[in-house]
Amino acid sequence: MIDPGAHLHRMRNRAPLVQNITNFVAMNVMANVLLAAGASPAMVHGLEEAAEFAGLAGALTINIGTASGDWIAGMEAAARAAGALGMPWVLDPVAVGATAFRRELGARLMALGPTILRGNASEILALAGTAARGKGADAADPVAAAEQAARDLARRSGAVVAVTGPVDFVTDGTRAARVQGGHPLMPRITALGCALTGVVGAFAVSEDPFAATTAALAFYARAGEIAGAAAHGPGSFQVAFLDALHGLAPDDLSRSARIEPA
Amino acid sequence: MIDPGAHLHRMRNRAPLVQNITNFVAMNVMANVLLAAGASPAMVHGLEEAAEFAGLAGALTINIGTASGDWIAGMEAAARAAGALGMPWVLDPVAVGATAFRRELGARLMALGPTILRGNASEILALAGTAARGKGADAADPVAAAEQAARDLARRSGAVVAVTGPVDFVTDGTRAARVQGGHPLMPRITALGCALTGVVGAFAVSEDPFAATTAALAFYARAGEIAGAAAHGPGSFQVAFLDALHGLAPDDLSRSARIEPA
Amino acid sequence: MIDPGAHLHRMRNRAPLVQNITNFVAMNVMANVLLAAGASPAMVHGLEEAAEFAGLAGALTINIGTASGDWIAGMEAAARAAGALGMPWVLDPVAVGATAFRRELGARLMALGPTILRGNASEILALAGTAARGKGADAADPVAAAEQAARDLARRSGAVVAVTGPVDFVTDGTRAARVQGGHPLMPRITALGCALTGVVGAFAVSEDPFAATTAALAFYARAGEIAGAAAHGPGSFQVAFLDALHGLAPDDLSRSARIEPA
Repeated sequence: MIDPGAHLHRMRNRAPLVQNITNFVAMNVMANVLLAAGASPAMVHGLEEAAEFAGLAGALTINIGTASGDWIAGMEAAARAAGALGMPWVLDPVAVGATAFRRELGARLMALGPTILRGNASEILALAGTAARGKGADAADPVAAAEQAARDLARRSGAVVAVTGPVDFVTDGTRAARVQGGHPLMPRITALGCALTGVVGAFAVSEDPFAATTAALAFYARAGEIAGAAAHGPGSFQVAFLDALHGLAPDDLSRSARIEPA
Repeated sequence: MIDPGAHLHRMRNRAPLVQNITNFVAMNVMANVLLAAGASPAMVHGLEEAAEFAGLAGALTINIGTASGDWIAGMEAAARAAGALGMPWVLDPVAVGATAFRRELGARLMALGPTILRGNASEILALAGTAARGKGADAADPVAAAEQAARDLARRSGAVVAVTGPVDFVTDGTRAARVQGGHPLMPRITALGCALTGVVGAFAVSEDPFAATTAALAFYARAGEIAGAAAHGPGSFQVAFLDALHGLAPDDLSRSARIEPA
Repeated sequence: MIDPGAHLHRMRNRAPLVQNITNFVAMNVMANVLLAAGASPAMVHGLEEAAEFAGLAGALTINIGTASGDWIAGMEAAARAAGALGMPWVLDPVAVGATAFRRELGARLMALGPTILRGNASEILALAGTAARGKGADAADPVAAAEQAARDLARRSGAVVAVTGPVDFVTDGTRAARVQGGHPLMPRITALGCALTGVVGAFAVSEDPFAATTAALAFYARAGEIAGAAAHGPGSFQVAFLDALHGLAPDDLSRSARIEPA
């Protein structure tokens, strides 16, 4: 039985330094989400230092949203460093099915063995080699359509795979869970999925990746519910969401989280 | 007679994928503005994929705010792809008069035949070859001072030209309109002009560019009025503005828009 | 006796153009903070134009948060141009102690003679060559632990040195002051320190750097207090903070600022 409040409590006590190599759209909101949740974000991607910095961090996240040129070498160097250190790292394959460049980059990063993979249904389907309908960063396929692909991908790659959407699905190939919560406004705010990848990284420090990922999704989903109750649109949602990530107490989360085995 | 509410309704039904090659300051707010309005933004600029991605999108926007190095090749490749596909693309010549580099880049992109050009008065004057006073991204010339330059530039280039400010001016060289609305706090929030360029792109998909641009400006101006009535400063304005872009109903827009032929 | 309200009044009258070469996380919030305060920000970093643009600006700020590759050449060219023009420039050495790359870059930029240096205690200790505990962008050392290092660094470099935190410390090596105010939520919002560097640049135009820096810190601290009184968490703090920077009147600031000689 996963207790997400206990995970939240331990994460906040650790206040882990999370290194993020992410896209330009997400950087600010991802850093704010991590700070609000109680972690310490560092956006360090330069080839000159990405691998060295990984030695200071507790977790690494890599997001291909606006990858190009030298950034890719920085991603690979940091992922290799994380692997060598036994540190968890999370891959966020934004719009991986959209172009030949993204498909190739996604495959190269998968080959480096991410601890956790987080994407929307279209992205997970594309990574699994199944035809997906999403073109941009927005999902065009329902989560349920990607559950089998997620299980297969988890077994094949050894990564925990999280498919996020109206109901999230998490699996390590053997265990699986669904997480309910969130709010319909969430996809109307850019980079909340990217930012969630950072939260997953923060929760994964020194924890079982499957349980930590599930707990992180439950935390995010509950904060989304709280924010949604106060919001009048995507602008006020963003404000209320950061407040909720900061204010959500572990015992409230333990009581309210909706996690079901799948 | 342009009915901006009908344009808004059709844009939301299409939920067009808009590819934006924009500056680092604008990326997040531009994506949020497009999502709030009802479009699907994709910030894809890498030379490795910018042209291929244009084949998936409904419109393209190019903004020179922080252009440098490889980005310029990505801009040109995407603009050429858009031209070959007959897809509308919008040029946003941020601070084009400030440096020799920007003047040269602005001229190169104009030569690729944008469908629509959106800038402030100083930028349009600079592109038209008329002396402008603005140095940074902020306008130092009134919109009225750029109306003749806009008409000339539209005739010469074949682009619809929109000069935005306290009262917007739009022309295709033959037709022209003025759009009233907005709020004095808008220039106190960074990148709202850049984000508007994205909205113009979203409206332009499968529509007459002059009518679509005018409708997009009326939509933005009305959302600005609504936000201004609720705001206590630039922070709360931003929040209320995203909420207003999301909540504004087509029939409200049709009733309240202030568009006049010019 | 430094009157921060008089400094704020003069800064707003000048509405100075401040050129910022900053990191990707900070760009948007820094521009919004400068606009809310009453300055005109320009994020211009490209090697193709950074030095030329400095000739248009009233002040320059350089932040190493996500520096890499060509950006470093742009930083050096702009800093040299500022030096040649006698224009104030401010260095923000984000996480300078974290990696060999940052230590070397910090030393190179210090050698170009910044007018003002603003960092947290861990960063100032690292630049001064004293062992610091901070790893990422967040401070792990108290301000008081960096006061002597700041005095030494100011004397050695000729720069005004500002160590910011719960109580700020400013010194030019001879004079020194402490500034109280702000709010405990401020470190829970990304890039507020980076954005403060821009405000310091805006205040420094045509002013004594020590007095201007002290006044800028007092302005920021007071706006933080006002925002903190209205905030429920880091999301609503950000909103209230931009509103407060915009709405804070010079005479309110003069009355409420808590600046003490040190």
